[in-house]
Amino acid sequence: MNLVNGAASDAASATDRGLAYGDGIFRTLLIRAGRPVWWRRHAAKLASDCAAVGIACPRLDQFERDLGALARETPDCVIKIIVTRGSGPRGYAPPVNASPTRIVTSSPLPAHPRDWHEHGVHVHLCRLRLARQPVLAGIKHLNRLEQVLARAEWNDPAVAEGLLCDTGDLVIGGTMTNVVLVRQGALVTPDLTSCGVAGVTRGLVLELARENGVATHVQAVSIDDLLGSDEVFLINSVIGVWPVAKLDCRTWPVGPVTAQVRKWLQSADDR
Amino acid sequence: MNLVNGAASDAASATDRGLAYGDGIFRTLLIRAGRPVWWRRHAAKLASDCAAVGIACPRLDQFERDLGALARETPDCVIKIIVTRGSGPRGYAPPVNASPTRIVTSSPLPAHPRDWHEHGVHVHLCRLRLARQPVLAGIKHLNRLEQVLARAEWNDPAVAEGLLCDTGDLVIGGTMTNVVLVRQGALVTPDLTSCGVAGVTRGLVLELARENGVATHVQAVSIDDLLGSDEVFLINSVIGVWPVAKLDCRTWPVGPVTAQVRKWLQSADDR
Repeated sequence: MNLVNGAASDAASATDRGLAYGDGIFRTLLIRAGRPVWWRRHAAKLASDCAAVGIACPRLDQFERDLGALARETPDCVIKIIVTRGSGPRGYAPPVNASPTRIVTSSPLPAHPRDWHEHGVHVHLCRLRLARQPVLAGIKHLNRLEQVLARAEWNDPAVAEGLLCDTGDLVIGGTMTNVVLVRQGALVTPDLTSCGVAGVTRGLVLELARENGVATHVQAVSIDDLLGSDEVFLINSVIGVWPVAKLDCRTWPVGPVTAQVRKWLQSADDR
Repeated sequence: MNLVNGAASDAASATDRGLAYGDGIFRTLLIRAGRPVWWRRHAAKLASDCAAVGIACPRLDQFERDLGALARETPDCVIKIIVTRGSGPRGYAPPVNASPTRIVTSSPLPAHPRDWHEHGVHVHLCRLRLARQPVLAGIKHLNRLEQVLARAEWNDPAVAEGLLCDTGDLVIGGTMTNVVLVRQGALVTPDLTSCGVAGVTRGLVLELARENGVATHVQAVSIDDLLGSDEVFLINSVIGVWPVAKLDCRTWPVGPVTAQVRKWLQSADDR
């Protein structure tokens, strides 16, 4: 079900700048037992991503009314929120009085094998390299052709995710996930100041680790760093944690730190 | 007026991948006296851009029927054609049986001062740097947040265009135009294998120059190269040629080669 600016509708404007230019941002989150998970964090990221591209973010209570309506219909679902700059005449110049478009969509929970949480996933190392654009780095904006082309590199359903490096061959993350390495008991995750999406789950995992006395490092990560890690796992707001069992030829057992992070997240529903 | 898959409509699907991911391509062209200008070239570029991102390009006769309908209504107008991969479920993976969306829109001719063609335009040197992504370079795809943010850098109506460099400080082009330098009688235009859009007018200008015995060079262009040029001009399918009169502090008179290129283009309607 789709709500477009609060009204049930399958239609967006044909002149919406989200369609014309990818001029907008989005979020993906879970509703569980009728409640949006980590909503406070998603709301904060909606606001900061909108600010980063100069879009006036709709009011929080508008999103919450949408989420409430969708949760009443389907108490357990995946929610996608899109905010665009709205419609406008032809041309890149943002309209002075743009009225943002708010699209909130519910979808069924994904049908990934449950096994993936327990025994880990197989990951493809993508050939495509992400461009370095510091001005857009970290933001979950609607310019996602790189991810579409990267995701088109494999169609083996046994491969859960693709891992992306940037044009400098640094590891950035999965097409739809952030990546975390475990090295000597510490969590290491790529610096995302040149590209990538700084997800809500990534922020939460780093916070939970610090609260629990686990060291965290946000830094440049090479493929060799990754292959030399004790454990590797993928995170996002829908899947939670997937241990990486296999990346091309390298395999890992599911490690204790990954299992611990998964437990932290499972009891952090209200964060 | 908008035609969505051939039918008059202001609505696109709220789950179109053009909106979700910028998963599509576009064109902008003129209809003059009821006839699309340089249509053969635009049609070829539609096909090659679709192929570059793996979208099945709609048939030529479908576009031509749309253009005919819009031209009957408004014999002189600007046409924008968007082709997206179509609607699909959540997730980056391109749907196997995606059915592309075709949106063709007519707008009034732009109201730029006529003076700009004769005496040249003022250009802003953008602070934003374009990311280098060879896989998407040259393609007029829907991921245009860089151009939106660059265009938001100025709102002085006397400034006609913004000039963009890439993250390596090479000159790439305007937000909506290609740039051509004149150096010792030869045309020099930036190499676009790392970023930028290789426009139809750019291809035509290079072809016309060669046919007329004017040397052409497609190469890396620095800001110093640009500032040291005898003439500079901007081109696209809607404006034709704008001589650059001023870039920040540097000024140029309108030169003879720019005027010549403008004449070539004016008599090349059927190309």
